[in-house]
Amino acid sequence: MNVELSAAALWADIEKIRQTSPVVHNITNFVVMNTTANALLALGASPVMAHAVEEVEDMTRLASSLVINIGTLSSEWVKAMKLAMQAAAEMNRPVVLDPVGAGATAYRTRISQDFLKQYRPTVLRGNISEIMALSDMGGETRGVDSSVSDMPVTEVMALAQTKNMVVAVSGETDLVTDGRRCAHIRNGHAMMPKVTGLGCTATAIVGAFVAIQADPFLAAAHAMATMGICGELAADKAAGPGSLQMHLLDSLHSLDEGLISAMLRR
Amino acid sequence: MNVELSAAALWADIEKIRQTSPVVHNITNFVVMNTTANALLALGASPVMAHAVEEVEDMTRLASSLVINIGTLSSEWVKAMKLAMQAAAEMNRPVVLDPVGAGATAYRTRISQDFLKQYRPTVLRGNISEIMALSDMGGETRGVDSSVSDMPVTEVMALAQTKNMVVAVSGETDLVTDGRRCAHIRNGHAMMPKVTGLGCTATAIVGAFVAIQADPFLAAAHAMATMGICGELAADKAAGPGSLQMHLLDSLHSLDEGLISAMLRR
Amino acid sequence: MNVELSAAALWADIEKIRQTSPVVHNITNFVVMNTTANALLALGASPVMAHAVEEVEDMTRLASSLVINIGTLSSEWVKAMKLAMQAAAEMNRPVVLDPVGAGATAYRTRISQDFLKQYRPTVLRGNISEIMALSDMGGETRGVDSSVSDMPVTEVMALAQTKNMVVAVSGETDLVTDGRRCAHIRNGHAMMPKVTGLGCTATAIVGAFVAIQADPFLAAAHAMATMGICGELAADKAAGPGSLQMHLLDSLHSLDEGLISAMLRR
Repeated sequence: MNVELSAAALWADIEKIRQTSPVVHNITNFVVMNTTANALLALGASPVMAHAVEEVEDMTRLASSLVINIGTLSSEWVKAMKLAMQAAAEMNRPVVLDPVGAGATAYRTRISQDFLKQYRPTVLRGNISEIMALSDMGGETRGVDSSVSDMPVTEVMALAQTKNMVVAVSGETDLVTDGRRCAHIRNGHAMMPKVTGLGCTATAIVGAFVAIQADPFLAAAHAMATMGICGELAADKAAGPGSLQMHLLDSLHSLDEGLISAMLRR
Repeated sequence: MNVELSAAALWADIEKIRQTSPVVHNITNFVVMNTTANALLALGASPVMAHAVEEVEDMTRLASSLVINIGTLSSEWVKAMKLAMQAAAEMNRPVVLDPVGAGATAYRTRISQDFLKQYRPTVLRGNISEIMALSDMGGETRGVDSSVSDMPVTEVMALAQTKNMVVAVSGETDLVTDGRRCAHIRNGHAMMPKVTGLGCTATAIVGAFVAIQADPFLAAAHAMATMGICGELAADKAAGPGSLQMHLLDSLHSLDEGLISAMLRR
Repeated sequence: MNVELSAAALWADIEKIRQTSPVVHNITNFVVMNTTANALLALGASPVMAHAVEEVEDMTRLASSLVINIGTLSSEWVKAMKLAMQAAAEMNRPVVLDPVGAGATAYRTRISQDFLKQYRPTVLRGNISEIMALSDMGGETRGVDSSVSDMPVTEVMALAQTKNMVVAVSGETDLVTDGRRCAHIRNGHAMMPKVTGLGCTATAIVGAFVAIQADPFLAAAHAMATMGICGELAADKAAGPGSLQMHLLDSLHSLDEGLISAMLRR
């Protein structure tokens, strides 16, 4: 069932993020820590970053949601991620998982599969190569930025249904599904993949939306649409990927209802 | 005793930083490494970042000051921080400590308290929740960005006096005290907390000032005022937190005596 | 033998990078991970960052080149770097080594020397203090940003010849040599050292050029010239080091043949 997003509902979520400033606990990769923290702040959320096994559980308990991103993985961090996901499960807190580079190396594929088996992320967000590497239906990954031009919607829906989670796949058109409902997000700009970690930023932003929106399907779809709209706003002003990154943060901060209504693509 | 800052004395410190380019050794968190290094460079100092237990002591001995920031702590890093603080004590080099998130998790509170007990930082810089968590007078922290609207001046002064150190508390008005003297820094802009790590940047900047200014109270006060003034200059030009971060670095680089005289609030 | 660079040959390399998007595996320091990934993307390459001992070999095998940068070293990372360099050697993949801070601490000097002894980097890129620390001809390093005003060309050529590698030394004029040929790169701007990690960015960019240019001497020279030209383009528009960093990424993305022809200094 295809769902059309409502600009009013998306705006209501953003207002709620700005008013309540939910704490989002991120265990993420070194490349994007600064930019994803800035994106969360610009949107109105309160990012915290903590990865020590001595404290991750405490931090997860303080937070409204947990974001796990395996972009620069190592064994100590895997331990911390597991402790945090366990704490989130006990507290019934939403978890967003970004399996960066799953399919690229056996290690990342295995760790991601373990995470999916042992914990149930609320939202799994990745590009189509990463998602397919976790679907037991094959797929190949070239580095961490690869994509498949045609989105295998049925397979993604099956994965979402089997694991009882929302899957958000970024691409030229993003696909968000809970196995039953599908949203196709047509916002975004071709220059966005030229900025490192905008996929990871989308994942972090999903963490803010799931913290305040009880329906994780809507939360993920609203987050992906917000990224796409802000990416377009930023690209309009940008002379290249350096300025796009800056304008994107400014856009997340200044986004308003009028812009969303005018720009949300159906 | 309330002290009024002198624009001329502040400018003299900045000129000295630019002329001597003091090496500031930072053991800091992953989120802000890039932006604090850039802030130190823009101001005129020479940042170095090193955290391996094999080399931290050597690096501290090469540097004019040491900045310790526990924003993304783990046990290996704690070991390195202790070695570096020990080396700084032996060399009589100033140490700036930022207890990011003290009060938020038991681990951070304990590590910060250990650091205060075993080593005497020259300057302790944090927000009021973090400082209160270390004052044995309670206080609560919400994430790493929380603040208390009314600054408990007496308690902060008592902490400074007891530990014989300067305490610099950031807030709407910053408070800097050595237990006897107090400076209230009224510069700054409401958008600054929307950029990640500007508190950590203030801490790093204190590291540059204590390297060239023998009175750590004045060093910390001048550093906080510099951050506040540059934040205002940046906010004037910024369309949001993304551009604020960029303009802040530009402002640290182009700051001059006229701007300081015109903008320093009393 | 002094070699004059050809703007047409430099442009041909950039076009090849943009057309083939070579995967460049970076094991680099925390300070510059974001900015070097962004520089590689802006230029047209595909950066990956991975440092876990469990996967570095797999990642190196997927990549067209390997970049090793010791800016924030620790023993676990040294292990990973060795595994990656070994894998690159077995696959006959080019390796670029940046010995950040060699000469500043005994640890960095020793690790860099070990790397040079055990593996043969295709290109060694550093400032003159770092290079001299590895030449067995002495030299002193102050922090990680030091420089020697007059470049000891003969010594650098001898190092390149002895180790059968290309050496690229950044300075006011960059020197690139394979022990026989020398290129002197006169592009660049005085504000560039005020941005953290532009040396590391040059190193990363060399990684993109060696991936597509079979002659590593030309690859390194073209990379250094590209950095210098883009730095000048950025400085023209910049109000300080913050905006210089942003404009540099935009320039890497928008660079074209006309700009190269007009700006390449001989």
